[in-house]
Amino acid sequence: MASLRGGIDLGGTKIEAIVVDGYNKVLGSARHPTPQEGGPEAVARQMAAAVSEAATKASVEPAALLGIGVGSPGAVDSATGVVTAARNLNDWEGSFPLGETLSTALGTRVVVGNDVAVGTEAEFTIGAAKQFTSLLGVFWGTGVGGGVILDKELWHGRGGAGEIGHVLYKPGGRRCGCGNRGCVEAYAGRASMESKARRLIKHHKKSDLLSIMEKKGRDRFTSSVWAHAVGHGDPVATKLIGEAVDALGAGIASAVNLLDVEAVVIGGGLGTRFGEEYVTRIEAAMGPHLFPGHRRPVVTLAGLGDLGGALGAALLVKRARAPRRAD
Amino acid sequence: MASLRGGIDLGGTKIEAIVVDGYNKVLGSARHPTPQEGGPEAVARQMAAAVSEAATKASVEPAALLGIGVGSPGAVDSATGVVTAARNLNDWEGSFPLGETLSTALGTRVVVGNDVAVGTEAEFTIGAAKQFTSLLGVFWGTGVGGGVILDKELWHGRGGAGEIGHVLYKPGGRRCGCGNRGCVEAYAGRASMESKARRLIKHHKKSDLLSIMEKKGRDRFTSSVWAHAVGHGDPVATKLIGEAVDALGAGIASAVNLLDVEAVVIGGGLGTRFGEEYVTRIEAAMGPHLFPGHRRPVVTLAGLGDLGGALGAALLVKRARAPRRAD
Repeated sequence: MASLRGGIDLGGTKIEAIVVDGYNKVLGSARHPTPQEGGPEAVARQMAAAVSEAATKASVEPAALLGIGVGSPGAVDSATGVVTAARNLNDWEGSFPLGETLSTALGTRVVVGNDVAVGTEAEFTIGAAKQFTSLLGVFWGTGVGGGVILDKELWHGRGGAGEIGHVLYKPGGRRCGCGNRGCVEAYAGRASMESKARRLIKHHKKSDLLSIMEKKGRDRFTSSVWAHAVGHGDPVATKLIGEAVDALGAGIASAVNLLDVEAVVIGGGLGTRFGEEYVTRIEAAMGPHLFPGHRRPVVTLAGLGDLGGALGAALLVKRARAPRRAD
Repeated sequence: MASLRGGIDLGGTKIEAIVVDGYNKVLGSARHPTPQEGGPEAVARQMAAAVSEAATKASVEPAALLGIGVGSPGAVDSATGVVTAARNLNDWEGSFPLGETLSTALGTRVVVGNDVAVGTEAEFTIGAAKQFTSLLGVFWGTGVGGGVILDKELWHGRGGAGEIGHVLYKPGGRRCGCGNRGCVEAYAGRASMESKARRLIKHHKKSDLLSIMEKKGRDRFTSSVWAHAVGHGDPVATKLIGEAVDALGAGIASAVNLLDVEAVVIGGGLGTRFGEEYVTRIEAAMGPHLFPGHRRPVVTLAGLGDLGGALGAALLVKRARAPRRAD
């Protein structure tokens, strides 16, 4: 039992928890909705409940786990487990000791990492990018996140590296959630796309996005709402997804020209939902912007799908226990 | 004498050669024009002549040097010293064994590196960025080259990393020398700026660029021609340099958002010529595109000026002789 590890992917809409063995095989999993009220404390309680459920399915007590890794949005201090400004979560503008809170509740060690970094490491270690030594992970979802692996190591910068969503696509262009204009995310992030779509619909552009959303019982344009609308040729959805693909292609090409990585892995909610066909479209959109003198990178769909975040989180435990030499 | 090293910076218009001591102090230097005819052989002969002249000034035989480093444009194979497709040099589309040719002519070891990589290493090791562990070097000249240092090491990618000049500035924008559209270099590279200025002048835009060029006895718009024109409020020069600053600011900000480096160093012919005032302007142009959640990097002028390339080239010799442990 001592080799079992927990992994929790904390997202804006859902909490995905798993328990894996030493070979990263999933022995138990649970998905809970992310509380939209009650602040970080309520979120932490729901996370503890989710991982406990996953542990029960794996026939293990949480306290008997080697440890639990967490992939969290916001600014993560991995040394202390404190998470600050997780803005796509309710009432989480300040700092909250997520690691300590979970550790106390669950009776085992908890390691917290950045969600996108963790997802990139997972694709690199056990996913679609195992054979590469350098790669760019692109997580196309509510926002557009990125992770950079160079020479087999995640590059953190001063803690904020990987913001492929805030690489410039169009100067003076659409307002981004970050406050700037023309970022990749302003065109490709699900939240930005929804805002734009609602404005277009308000101005009488023909679209079934709202009725598709209602039929699916959702209150926002989820990845499945977009996929359904595009599948039926909805003009607003088709136009906005086309712009998203162009923005992603351009931003990724800029990053590749700068870093000359071997591979690009496309994941995230929209990336996973739209799949191979859209990976091919994004690769085509990169084409006109790639530096002609370079070898082109491999562009591939994330291999771990929705579980990538939780699997990567569980890897945090493994890595933190690696033997260290004094230097 | 055995601790003296040579350094040669091979540029499209000039060859800068130096001899330095173990403290990187310049003991002798020579500047020769780059032959515009005769292909790589003529260029190599002129390089040998330049470094011999520098050695004479330093009272040393070239053969007595510890070695000679070369910073070259084009695709450099540093293991063999072969340079391929140095396109801003005459008749150098193919491959030429530059290292071997110089070594035979001069009787000492020759190490060849990429000019921009070498310039970045020089600023990091002995120039303006000594105190940083990660940085982006931006060389604003005929083209716009870049070098990326992460965790104190130059990041090469698969040999082509650092193309900050081919980060996208404006989709569908001005045609770049690389064939793509809208690259930073299409707006900020001296060669692109000159093409655009000549087109504007042809279409009767008022400008003194041509007469300034003639008065200076040049056949193209050199950095000093641009500086003179801007200093006198020339409308075409002012407009184009303004666009160059905007493009540089945007491209550098994209790179910083992705890499979260501690510092940005601005060098190159135009960067050195325009100096501190323009570093401040480029930093201001980065502002609207930097990810708001990040700490801003230090943005600074290259510290080694015109000699940076040759000093960095000389460092290649030092590094190649560093003791190595088997691993």
